[in-house]
Amino acid sequence: VRTIAILTDFGLQDNFVGVMKGVILNINPKVNLVDISHNIKSQGILEAAILLKGAYRYFPKKTIFLAIVDPGVGSKRHPIIIQSQNYFFVGPDNGILSLAATEDKIKRIILIENKKYFLKNVCDTFHGRDIFAPTAAYLSKGKNLNLFGRKLSSLKKLNIAKPKENRNQLCGEIIYIDKFGNLVTNIEKNLWQKFIKNRYFRIKIQNKTIDSLVKSYEAAGKGRPLAIFGSFGFLEISVNGGSAKRYFGANRGTAIYITR
Amino acid sequence: VRTIAILTDFGLQDNFVGVMKGVILNINPKVNLVDISHNIKSQGILEAAILLKGAYRYFPKKTIFLAIVDPGVGSKRHPIIIQSQNYFFVGPDNGILSLAATEDKIKRIILIENKKYFLKNVCDTFHGRDIFAPTAAYLSKGKNLNLFGRKLSSLKKLNIAKPKENRNQLCGEIIYIDKFGNLVTNIEKNLWQKFIKNRYFRIKIQNKTIDSLVKSYEAAGKGRPLAIFGSFGFLEISVNGGSAKRYFGANRGTAIYITR
Amino acid sequence: VRTIAILTDFGLQDNFVGVMKGVILNINPKVNLVDISHNIKSQGILEAAILLKGAYRYFPKKTIFLAIVDPGVGSKRHPIIIQSQNYFFVGPDNGILSLAATEDKIKRIILIENKKYFLKNVCDTFHGRDIFAPTAAYLSKGKNLNLFGRKLSSLKKLNIAKPKENRNQLCGEIIYIDKFGNLVTNIEKNLWQKFIKNRYFRIKIQNKTIDSLVKSYEAAGKGRPLAIFGSFGFLEISVNGGSAKRYFGANRGTAIYITR
Repeated sequence: VRTIAILTDFGLQDNFVGVMKGVILNINPKVNLVDISHNIKSQGILEAAILLKGAYRYFPKKTIFLAIVDPGVGSKRHPIIIQSQNYFFVGPDNGILSLAATEDKIKRIILIENKKYFLKNVCDTFHGRDIFAPTAAYLSKGKNLNLFGRKLSSLKKLNIAKPKENRNQLCGEIIYIDKFGNLVTNIEKNLWQKFIKNRYFRIKIQNKTIDSLVKSYEAAGKGRPLAIFGSFGFLEISVNGGSAKRYFGANRGTAIYITR
Repeated sequence: VRTIAILTDFGLQDNFVGVMKGVILNINPKVNLVDISHNIKSQGILEAAILLKGAYRYFPKKTIFLAIVDPGVGSKRHPIIIQSQNYFFVGPDNGILSLAATEDKIKRIILIENKKYFLKNVCDTFHGRDIFAPTAAYLSKGKNLNLFGRKLSSLKKLNIAKPKENRNQLCGEIIYIDKFGNLVTNIEKNLWQKFIKNRYFRIKIQNKTIDSLVKSYEAAGKGRPLAIFGSFGFLEISVNGGSAKRYFGANRGTAIYITR
Repeated sequence: VRTIAILTDFGLQDNFVGVMKGVILNINPKVNLVDISHNIKSQGILEAAILLKGAYRYFPKKTIFLAIVDPGVGSKRHPIIIQSQNYFFVGPDNGILSLAATEDKIKRIILIENKKYFLKNVCDTFHGRDIFAPTAAYLSKGKNLNLFGRKLSSLKKLNIAKPKENRNQLCGEIIYIDKFGNLVTNIEKNLWQKFIKNRYFRIKIQNKTIDSLVKSYEAAGKGRPLAIFGSFGFLEISVNGGSAKRYFGANRGTAIYITR
């Protein structure tokens, strides 16, 4: 049984997500459908790309990720399929697929152009329903990628801002804030280890400081801020039993300074 | 494998939807369960009916739609099954099923009255769990409709307000607003084409105007308002990259004037 | 086909729930996944325990309930499996499982300690993904409980506050408020019947009163408050066609006085 995992900014208010699932089950009733999130901020391509990068590797091999945040729907942006080492990705070529697919090593990029696999009467405001969902469904039935269209040689890429190193200071930023108010930074474990080694350090956000790195929330006192390598694989700033977003007054884009 | 697609105003806070799925899987573990929406405004029968009408035709034939917005739960309103040309609908007879089932041509209406297919100890505040979910589950196992109760000859109907035509003016209204702030009107494509033909026109909402109809959001400039036939099949008013709800200060019920 | 029913405070914004489902399907692709709720207030263990107690008995026997509200993640609180008369429960030993499992009669409690059934590289901020989800998945494949770890002899328990009886007054409290604003009290039907028998009574909340118990919302006039035994099995206070939360200005913890 194949899995199709869906990530959109469609919300759960309207019928958009349900309709896409209807389209998929009409083509392949024996597929596992999983929601990654539908509460991406409207048109938040980078946010979706980060969540997809943090999620894909936990799914069964050959899972098809249907990821649609598509402000350019109906314009000339390409609808694409990416085959990576272990997975398939379906969505618009606006960068949403790029972080995850690049990490898993891209093998092939296909332009979706074969109308045989579209719904009849494509509506140019909802390619999720009329193009992407049926494409994912036919893929899940094992159709060969080359049937969907010709190969493309490149991809629109997004980049997560890289932290800047400046003598004894590393300056990163908050790239994502989760439901609990944990602040996910752009500082990866490798970089941290190279920069800090075993030295003392101080982390500063909005003029508040943290000076130890812990392995679990409880290692800090109740209500105390802490730094930890979290489930996204990046350095995260948290508050034990509270919200670091509130504690630091931080937002996406807020700078984080690490001095060694 | 049959599909049961569920639409309610139960929200995702409580355990109501999960419990209904538990009831269904207890009767038929081999069914596909799809959520259409559970975030219908409490007691928003018309809203649910519009979403169901916009969704049903994308699902596999013989899908069972379990649609419950039921302010009269426990009163004398009838619990019903409707068999239409291609689908089955289960829910209260308060109009919620009427737009979709009528469009797909009604073949049979059954009063749900056979307690054999209810949970024991029906609680009169939650027929979704105790009557509708088990009925849908037994239907999905192929039970004959006539086993559930006797035939009814009519149905409570809802109507979407029809636009009014007055010489050179067509006056419609906003019947639904989606997550992106797109304004769905009650003006269907046929009516539009008959009224406008190839003439010039002007659309007016809350004293702001639009004078072209486009085929994709991008055809209007970034941040510009536009008119488009959207995925619901009605004329929609949108803003490219923004929210038409905010732009026009519109709500459900706001009038839209089209002058030719 | 086994069912895994999931209840968390992870929200639907992030990718946490989707990732857990990916982990599960990677181990057992033939399992039914049902969401009970993911919108538990952050760290609301009691709220989750109440929803689980109200839900579990409607699911197929042998359903595995994966319930994770886990402020102590990464600390010394135990990860456990409980086998009860009819079901399995997986989660942290902080009381979240205790109301449901105790009601269904506990047969065995197992400490989850066999790393063979964890993901590699357990991250101490997300045991849901790295420990609990794979444990539930292997359980759903029929693995014997004893493979996961040694037996424990006791469990952390939560208690719902018991109403206090004082001559002719019964004093309870609101323990849960649902999406519709219905106030769920801690007064069970048995207690009510013993206390009231056939006597007259008056219910008082925030200085407003109700003096009849009804069997359906409609039995009270439109907009009128009412008392009813609701779908949770407790006395509930509702308003026909409205919100009792708003009508009474009540919150969780608000007292309810019943005088006979």
